[in-house]
Amino acid sequence: MSTDATTRAAAIHGLIHPQSIAIIGASADLSKINGRPLKHLLDKGYTGRILPVNPKYAEIAGVPCHASIASLPEAADLAIVAVPAAEVLASIDALGRRGVRAAVIFSSGFGETGAAGLAMERELADCARRHGMVLCGPNCLGFVNAFDRVYATFSQYADGDTGPGPVAFVTQSGAFGTAIAALARQRGLGLGYFINTGNQADLDFSELMDSVIDDPRIRVAAGYLEGLEDGDALIRLAQRCHQLGKPLVLTKVGRMVSGQRAAASHTGALAVADTVFDAVLRQYGVLRARNEEQMLDMLQALSQDRRPAGFGLGIATQSGGAGVMMADRAEEVGLTMPELTPATQARLAAVMPAFGAAGNPVDVTGQFVARPELLRESVVALLDDPGIDVAIVWLQLMTAHVDVLVRIFCEIRDRTNVGNRKPFFVCWVAAPAAALTRLRAEGIVVFSAGERAVEAAAALARHAAFSRAQQSRQPSAPRAAPVLPVIDAEGVQPSVQAAQWLRAAGVPIAPVALAADEEQAVALWRAAGGAVALKIESRDITHKTEVGGVILKLDDEAAVRAAFSTLLQRARSAMPQARLDGVLVQPMAQGHLELVLGVQRDPIFGMVVMVGLGGVLVEVLKDVAFRRAPFDADEAQGMLRELRLGALLDGVRGQPGVDRGALSQMLSDLSHWAAAMRPLLAELDLNPVLVGSTGPMAVDCVMVLRRQGPDVAQNPSSHA
Amino acid sequence: MSTDATTRAAAIHGLIHPQSIAIIGASADLSKINGRPLKHLLDKGYTGRILPVNPKYAEIAGVPCHASIASLPEAADLAIVAVPAAEVLASIDALGRRGVRAAVIFSSGFGETGAAGLAMERELADCARRHGMVLCGPNCLGFVNAFDRVYATFSQYADGDTGPGPVAFVTQSGAFGTAIAALARQRGLGLGYFINTGNQADLDFSELMDSVIDDPRIRVAAGYLEGLEDGDALIRLAQRCHQLGKPLVLTKVGRMVSGQRAAASHTGALAVADTVFDAVLRQYGVLRARNEEQMLDMLQALSQDRRPAGFGLGIATQSGGAGVMMADRAEEVGLTMPELTPATQARLAAVMPAFGAAGNPVDVTGQFVARPELLRESVVALLDDPGIDVAIVWLQLMTAHVDVLVRIFCEIRDRTNVGNRKPFFVCWVAAPAAALTRLRAEGIVVFSAGERAVEAAAALARHAAFSRAQQSRQPSAPRAAPVLPVIDAEGVQPSVQAAQWLRAAGVPIAPVALAADEEQAVALWRAAGGAVALKIESRDITHKTEVGGVILKLDDEAAVRAAFSTLLQRARSAMPQARLDGVLVQPMAQGHLELVLGVQRDPIFGMVVMVGLGGVLVEVLKDVAFRRAPFDADEAQGMLRELRLGALLDGVRGQPGVDRGALSQMLSDLSHWAAAMRPLLAELDLNPVLVGSTGPMAVDCVMVLRRQGPDVAQNPSSHA
Repeated sequence: MSTDATTRAAAIHGLIHPQSIAIIGASADLSKINGRPLKHLLDKGYTGRILPVNPKYAEIAGVPCHASIASLPEAADLAIVAVPAAEVLASIDALGRRGVRAAVIFSSGFGETGAAGLAMERELADCARRHGMVLCGPNCLGFVNAFDRVYATFSQYADGDTGPGPVAFVTQSGAFGTAIAALARQRGLGLGYFINTGNQADLDFSELMDSVIDDPRIRVAAGYLEGLEDGDALIRLAQRCHQLGKPLVLTKVGRMVSGQRAAASHTGALAVADTVFDAVLRQYGVLRARNEEQMLDMLQALSQDRRPAGFGLGIATQSGGAGVMMADRAEEVGLTMPELTPATQARLAAVMPAFGAAGNPVDVTGQFVARPELLRESVVALLDDPGIDVAIVWLQLMTAHVDVLVRIFCEIRDRTNVGNRKPFFVCWVAAPAAALTRLRAEGIVVFSAGERAVEAAAALARHAAFSRAQQSRQPSAPRAAPVLPVIDAEGVQPSVQAAQWLRAAGVPIAPVALAADEEQAVALWRAAGGAVALKIESRDITHKTEVGGVILKLDDEAAVRAAFSTLLQRARSAMPQARLDGVLVQPMAQGHLELVLGVQRDPIFGMVVMVGLGGVLVEVLKDVAFRRAPFDADEAQGMLRELRLGALLDGVRGQPGVDRGALSQMLSDLSHWAAAMRPLLAELDLNPVLVGSTGPMAVDCVMVLRRQGPDVAQNPSSHA
Repeated sequence: MSTDATTRAAAIHGLIHPQSIAIIGASADLSKINGRPLKHLLDKGYTGRILPVNPKYAEIAGVPCHASIASLPEAADLAIVAVPAAEVLASIDALGRRGVRAAVIFSSGFGETGAAGLAMERELADCARRHGMVLCGPNCLGFVNAFDRVYATFSQYADGDTGPGPVAFVTQSGAFGTAIAALARQRGLGLGYFINTGNQADLDFSELMDSVIDDPRIRVAAGYLEGLEDGDALIRLAQRCHQLGKPLVLTKVGRMVSGQRAAASHTGALAVADTVFDAVLRQYGVLRARNEEQMLDMLQALSQDRRPAGFGLGIATQSGGAGVMMADRAEEVGLTMPELTPATQARLAAVMPAFGAAGNPVDVTGQFVARPELLRESVVALLDDPGIDVAIVWLQLMTAHVDVLVRIFCEIRDRTNVGNRKPFFVCWVAAPAAALTRLRAEGIVVFSAGERAVEAAAALARHAAFSRAQQSRQPSAPRAAPVLPVIDAEGVQPSVQAAQWLRAAGVPIAPVALAADEEQAVALWRAAGGAVALKIESRDITHKTEVGGVILKLDDEAAVRAAFSTLLQRARSAMPQARLDGVLVQPMAQGHLELVLGVQRDPIFGMVVMVGLGGVLVEVLKDVAFRRAPFDADEAQGMLRELRLGALLDGVRGQPGVDRGALSQMLSDLSHWAAAMRPLLAELDLNPVLVGSTGPMAVDCVMVLRRQGPDVAQNPSSHA
């Protein structure tokens, strides 16, 4: 760690775990935004030193008040800044001069108001940087460190019980984040940290989460995002979470076109293409929750310490219908419902009444009220089945039977607390409040609806599977980074040149040569020894077929000559201004399936590789998969599995299946090359890539180079 | 109404609205299954006569007890039967002899236990029918008529407050149904009727719902289904609900393969193909809720009396992020987020703080706490916008501001209680309990999560749109029912014959003729005056292409002769046993798009018409739409809109669009013919149907006739 990084880390540590807190602009009215932090710090027993600053008061609520920042008796670890926007910059400067190294800024009136505000916000960040200070905000609700009783916030969330607990929650939204925190509290899910990032003038989502995730009391990280600027930082965070064995759950709004429009008008943050965002999260093992309820469901499942070894779900239910509904949902979200072994069925038959079904779902009926051991033995038998990795027990109401049911669930927990300790969840619909409280106190996870329990179990299984795959994955052999080509000009590259670069990187691409005149074209056809395609070549024509610029299957001299002049004529007629470099001659390639491969430089995540099925139907379906480059062939196999039309790869109606391995290797090779080309490559399209018995082969290529500007290479409000 | 139907209707009325209730097997232990009805009837103030029957007691809880059914002082309107399974038949017979015309049977041990139980159940139904009695159950929790305080149930639901309210809820599941009823109560959603159908030996879901839906105090019907036998009855119910202007919401489990397997093992009911079920619900304007939470969300939206005139959603929110999330969901569920008119924007700008966005979603920020009129005026302006049909207001917590917020929402309600009275919903996340109670008391619908509110608004908009479409739809001109053909044999019909029947029904199908020998084939080719296709014809070969039985584009005599003998050889070699009738000769048809049309006789819903895109990709995607026959061309247009690849119909990559009108007319004509053919037609495949500039044309046809057996024509446990 460099000295700068060390200093910054120390400042961040001071921010989150301050021994002393200055409150700039502290109010004597403890119900006001600038009064609430002091109230919470006092009420909830913060043990460090509190230093209100306001020239109007000698003391507030018994705490001595200081006239100015300069007259502070010590350089506080943290300053809470709650002054009007116009005074914030002066306060930060004064704090920096006083030696304070961390501030949380409540004040609004910055980037969220437009260009002038954004300029003020950048000044603020610059000032902080000069002083070696870190900032949370501005325009934020602040944060809570529940372990150390640090209440640097005016969020309504702090009005109630605030944990602590195993969840670190970082939110870009104040209002929605407060709502999520309050819902977590309703579920008995404690937050160890609650942090609202605000405008992220300095510290952003990823760095703030990174600053709390290694706290051993934290088991799971949860984030709410509206926009993202630094994709690399998010990926480093995801990797760190996995190293620590702590799941990261994210909700990001702006999934659809109208939502993204709304997001763009709401925040200044760049709108990430959601399909890419979604793919990158999957690639790095981040769990995405579609809304706040699903996030909390996942957090409940993930905050207990048992992990399933596979995707087999066992269900025990008091209602056959609820079992059917959960089985439906399990299939949709990637869980399996294994049939039980004969041994398990025999165990169930020994305890079940005649009319309960002994399959999976196991219908325990309502008889367990009379015979509690029926429920206990059924669920233990289910969890003992080798095919079952996680179980859900569904029941409803039972207001009169809370005592016995809580006891049974505890017995199930204890009986299964050995060996591989498979997780089980209770889904108790319309549960008495006492049942929820008591089960949660026993560390038993309880949901209120069947489909939600299944979705949470699936998230837990996906997380565990990702962790296993990471552990078992062979590290890729290190690759020599390709030497970046020396280029004459940016923009569309000559096809012959582009094909050479790709071939050198191991990407299979059909040989192609440029004919400047008919004679050369004929010579190239003869040399090919079979049918060729002729294609117009011009840096100004990226979509050759749109100008009629491709003629296929030419296999005699006259046809080659005619095609040559036809192509030139068509191009001149369609695009008179285009500079024509000649005509490409290429042997006809084999393959019964058309794919499209592409690379784009995403402003957030850098080089992103795409694969899709080609052809007209796919244009309608937009059936494509993305991954951030680079990635290995295993990851590429995952891309192919995501294609809705992926079954075509295995051959339908008598067509042979294609070599998924060779295709995956091609994708991986392309991704490594693309990653190395990040400073130069803007865009690459391989369309079509023909796939047949001889493996995949790109037959056309459009490569656009453009040097990456410094404004794209890094976060504009970067802390680097 | 026939006398039988009148008698039955009277019996059902007595069941649901009894003036006197006998309790057969009444227990003195009021906590037992056979004691609980008496307890509830007494506690909750049933005003009719209660007649316990049990020879062991002279009275129970102060109510005189009768020694036997025969000695009952009157023929009660309703008997509750809670005796062991073996004694139920005798009880029903005795009740019938005593003149009782309705019974609810709690007892289990019937169809749900297997074949022997099912036989007992059928005996029970026969016995009741002989006596002109109606039965609810067996194996049910009974029912509640909350208006008349009839508690013919032992459901846990009756332990708490039981309404009444505007919802009629009928459930096939006892346990899940009780849970749903309890959840409805938690939301302040009152049930006027709660009915558990049990095994449906006599009264089924549809008839029970039908018996309560015209109660003017009921505004909305909700059902939970696990299986369905009588599809026609469900459709009649759906139509009745629409005539009454009362939405019908259904949740049916068994959507997926594993769920259907679980459903099949759980109930004896026929598993309806879920895609067909789903399509039929849409066709008849039934709202399907995927689970209990979505059902209750929809019921909340539907139980208020305002209806949106379109799909435009306006959102006012305290959190930009929540607005984005709701906008996303709106797009997914078919709502639009209209831009506001300049007039509305000016109104908003006049009341909004500088940093709130005035678009849609409207971000009212947290400032409305200080200036309540900001929220009121914003929402009223939003609802006044001509593009907005329904609005959602999102907020969170605000524990300290319940009074002012409830007042504001009431003012918004009153201000918008004129003109077209657009509905608005409050979405209050982590709301204080008092806020929920007070808003509900004011008739204001409140949700707890943004996406749910949007889904409920979409359901309301769909319901209103269906009602409008029903009112504006021109009644189809009555069609003469086609004369059912006289057929020689069931099974696959000769192609020439099948094509004639379809052509007569108005379905465009390419001319086709049968050649018994080469000479005839040549003559037919000459007569065609252009290229022809030759196809093998055999009642034993339904998939011609699988035996190489189709040769296309033949346009000279030698080719026709060669093809004729090739087809015979191929057929003999592939299927030596097949009876070969000759070779079909058909002019080549035109069209650039392949569709598949089909008809199947569904065991539940009768004749069902399918349309899908043809070809290999579609085989992978299974992109098809269904409707119950008959239907008009408008409905067929809806089928085409459901196809995921429907954009292909409008032409991609320069292809011309197809005539959706002609295709819809073809589907409608096919559906009318299919409906009339219900007694005969088992299956029809038109594959491919070529569509081009000259309209659609079926070029191949497989028609299978099979007389409908009486066991399929009607419900096996029918009450008819």
